[in-house]
Amino acid sequence: MEGSPTRSLSPAWLSYYVAISQILGLTVITMAGVWMGQYRGGIAWTSSLQFNVHPLCMIIGMVFLQGDALLVYRVFRNETKRATKILHGVLHVFALVIALVGLIAVFEYHRKQGYPDMYSLHSWCGIAAFSLYFVQWLLGFCFFLFPGASFLLRSKYKPQHIFFGAFLLILSITTALLGIMELLLFSIKDKYSSFVPEGILANTLGLLLIAFGAVTGYILTRDEWRRPPLAEEMALSMDFKTLTEGESPSSSQ
Amino acid sequence: MEGSPTRSLSPAWLSYYVAISQILGLTVITMAGVWMGQYRGGIAWTSSLQFNVHPLCMIIGMVFLQGDALLVYRVFRNETKRATKILHGVLHVFALVIALVGLIAVFEYHRKQGYPDMYSLHSWCGIAAFSLYFVQWLLGFCFFLFPGASFLLRSKYKPQHIFFGAFLLILSITTALLGIMELLLFSIKDKYSSFVPEGILANTLGLLLIAFGAVTGYILTRDEWRRPPLAEEMALSMDFKTLTEGESPSSSQ
Repeated sequence: MEGSPTRSLSPAWLSYYVAISQILGLTVITMAGVWMGQYRGGIAWTSSLQFNVHPLCMIIGMVFLQGDALLVYRVFRNETKRATKILHGVLHVFALVIALVGLIAVFEYHRKQGYPDMYSLHSWCGIAAFSLYFVQWLLGFCFFLFPGASFLLRSKYKPQHIFFGAFLLILSITTALLGIMELLLFSIKDKYSSFVPEGILANTLGLLLIAFGAVTGYILTRDEWRRPPLAEEMALSMDFKTLTEGESPSSSQ
Repeated sequence: MEGSPTRSLSPAWLSYYVAISQILGLTVITMAGVWMGQYRGGIAWTSSLQFNVHPLCMIIGMVFLQGDALLVYRVFRNETKRATKILHGVLHVFALVIALVGLIAVFEYHRKQGYPDMYSLHSWCGIAAFSLYFVQWLLGFCFFLFPGASFLLRSKYKPQHIFFGAFLLILSITTALLGIMELLLFSIKDKYSSFVPEGILANTLGLLLIAFGAVTGYILTRDEWRRPPLAEEMALSMDFKTLTEGESPSSSQ
């Protein structure tokens, strides 16, 4: 990565893109809340309104917090790698716990109402996304936070971890869209084609979820916004390169 | 990109991954055909079966051919850049034409049946994906195939073209999944929760579409499988670097 004049201007633009991603993220959470509050009767844990906990928790956990956990390597690009890693891991824990609450809500609601579980494409994608997300967290913890894994092992696993991290965010957003579609066709199927406000609100929520994913993905894939390695990490990379006489491990994420 | 022993082994693995992507791609087309043929009454242009042309054409055009058009830079990595570019552009034209047939089919079907258009999240995502895909093709043609654009302009636009190419493939697959969900809830809503064969077939088709996207995305994001620059392209890059005294343009895609 060369420090050309164009590239040194980039971090300022990064802030704008991060701001847009956060505005989009908070907007989708608000819209999901408005949808549940205004059109689906509100949110509660004990009545049939328990279902409404599900979309809200899944969007907060599996979309907003998961996305933000990926962005910490860009937002806190000048902090130490260890502190950034811990924040990344902790945000994913929050995401997993909130998503688990959302899953319990829908399974309990189904049980109380006598509805069958796990037959729709939305549920198949959702359970795959949540399970794989948990596995990804466990592997990430073992490789990058637990002290046992060697530097070589870490640098071998890292590209896989990054790819599957992006894949899981995309799968989670896709699953959210499938959930919006399923809920609309169960609740307002006959009115949906008349462009009723609830349908337009939910469709717009879907498009904004895609926009959140697109902006997050754009930030994560720009080479010039990758985390620059700190001096001590550079030294470690150079030592490793000398030891292996092979390729230099990527020291930025 | 350094030529370490590990990296030089990689192209063999690339072939396996490409083979898996093609098996997945042909499987999803076959499954969509079986779904329409066995459970939705078959395919025709004149009767109400005209709708069934839509899912099949969209999967062939917007998923399989669009995905394959992105893979040509990996599969034909040792051919000249111009030949690879032309193949890339031509595959996208086939994709666009087949998708257009699929769009005409569903709009004509709606018109004949008196159904409203463009109210569902699937239709919003679909029209956005198709329109942006057409714009992406036009921009790609103007920048990379039309002789007017300068080398500097091309290298500025290239990262955007690559990002939006990946985004559009993901959006197309998400739209296909939304379409599967919509069709199931319109055709077998009451039986879907009984795990009827049609529901399981369509859900499995959805998961395999995700798998096609995941394998294609994996191939495209591996640094070691990027197209190595040919000798004459290297020379051109070096000239350009000398001229600008800034960063070297990435000569591999």
